[in-house]
Amino acid sequence: MNFLEERIAKDGIVKPGNVLKVDSFLNHQMDIGLLEEIGREFKRRFADKNVTKVLTIEASGIGMACFVAKEFGVPMVFAKKSKSINIDGEMYVAEVESFTHKNKNQVIVSKKFLTPEDHLLIIDDFLANGCALQGLISIAESAGATVEGLGIAIEKGFQIGGRVIRNLGYDLQSLAIVESMDAEKGTIQFREQ
Amino acid sequence: MNFLEERIAKDGIVKPGNVLKVDSFLNHQMDIGLLEEIGREFKRRFADKNVTKVLTIEASGIGMACFVAKEFGVPMVFAKKSKSINIDGEMYVAEVESFTHKNKNQVIVSKKFLTPEDHLLIIDDFLANGCALQGLISIAESAGATVEGLGIAIEKGFQIGGRVIRNLGYDLQSLAIVESMDAEKGTIQFREQ
Repeated sequence: MNFLEERIAKDGIVKPGNVLKVDSFLNHQMDIGLLEEIGREFKRRFADKNVTKVLTIEASGIGMACFVAKEFGVPMVFAKKSKSINIDGEMYVAEVESFTHKNKNQVIVSKKFLTPEDHLLIIDDFLANGCALQGLISIAESAGATVEGLGIAIEKGFQIGGRVIRNLGYDLQSLAIVESMDAEKGTIQFREQ
Repeated sequence: MNFLEERIAKDGIVKPGNVLKVDSFLNHQMDIGLLEEIGREFKRRFADKNVTKVLTIEASGIGMACFVAKEFGVPMVFAKKSKSINIDGEMYVAEVESFTHKNKNQVIVSKKFLTPEDHLLIIDDFLANGCALQGLISIAESAGATVEGLGIAIEKGFQIGGRVIRNLGYDLQSLAIVESMDAEKGTIQFREQ
């Protein structure tokens, strides 16, 4: 097991309905040392890529994305989930359906911050059915930017998101892929990588 | 001018209606080096405080809060703006009215992550009428935690939030306090600190 799988096995909590709670260290309370380690690991995995910007989506991916961007020495841009009166001018928009919240959001990024010259590393904490990532890819494509890769902390391997995105030809790296979970026994099976 | 005031003067954009856009470096696209410098500056300003956790609210404060937490060597907790099906169990709740989005949000923090033993440094990117900060203070008080201080990147000094929170006796430090702005001339006046 790698460092993240070990942490999930230790502190993750399996709930009925295939819910994996990692809110004590990853997406509500954040262990900063772990986020830094995630940043270093993605730098190692995408070391040969010419990354000019890290792209994520609010909110729980922002911490991780900051430390990935720090490793690459590039800015981080996060997509916003609803139109704010403080975002004016032209923006890229994608419609994203959330698995967690069971609703649809417009995801927006100001056109100022993504250009055809950009080479993006897309980062998020969770990948399940992949709608958020598809929205970010759609925005990147609209901007004419190059998607160099996608880095995910935890992928639910039993949902279709990862397969869809890999089938589309993208370099998707998930630090931990959950193959199955058992809420009664509290056990988590990771995919061998 | 300090480093943040200089950056705002250089890259901030003043819009009619007292809107200050800093989305090219602080709250949409993020300059990671600047966030690190903000983290170091808050560590310097609150060096004598026994901080056990950094508390912020999603989404744009999360990046800053991560780097502040890194400096103090403590975890960061961010309050969430709407009930998620992935947050179960007991939580602290505050009602917060957003100046930017002109709507009300329930702000929630899981009770697991704030205790009477916690000494909190509350961090956010913007302070205007102070509703978000009041919500975070309310949650901290509900938990019986001690608020050691509040660190803000940009305070709109012509709105009441800062005065209210200082009048309540809290140690509120804002790196840049905007006294007035002129959208036509594009000028920004900072308060002498």
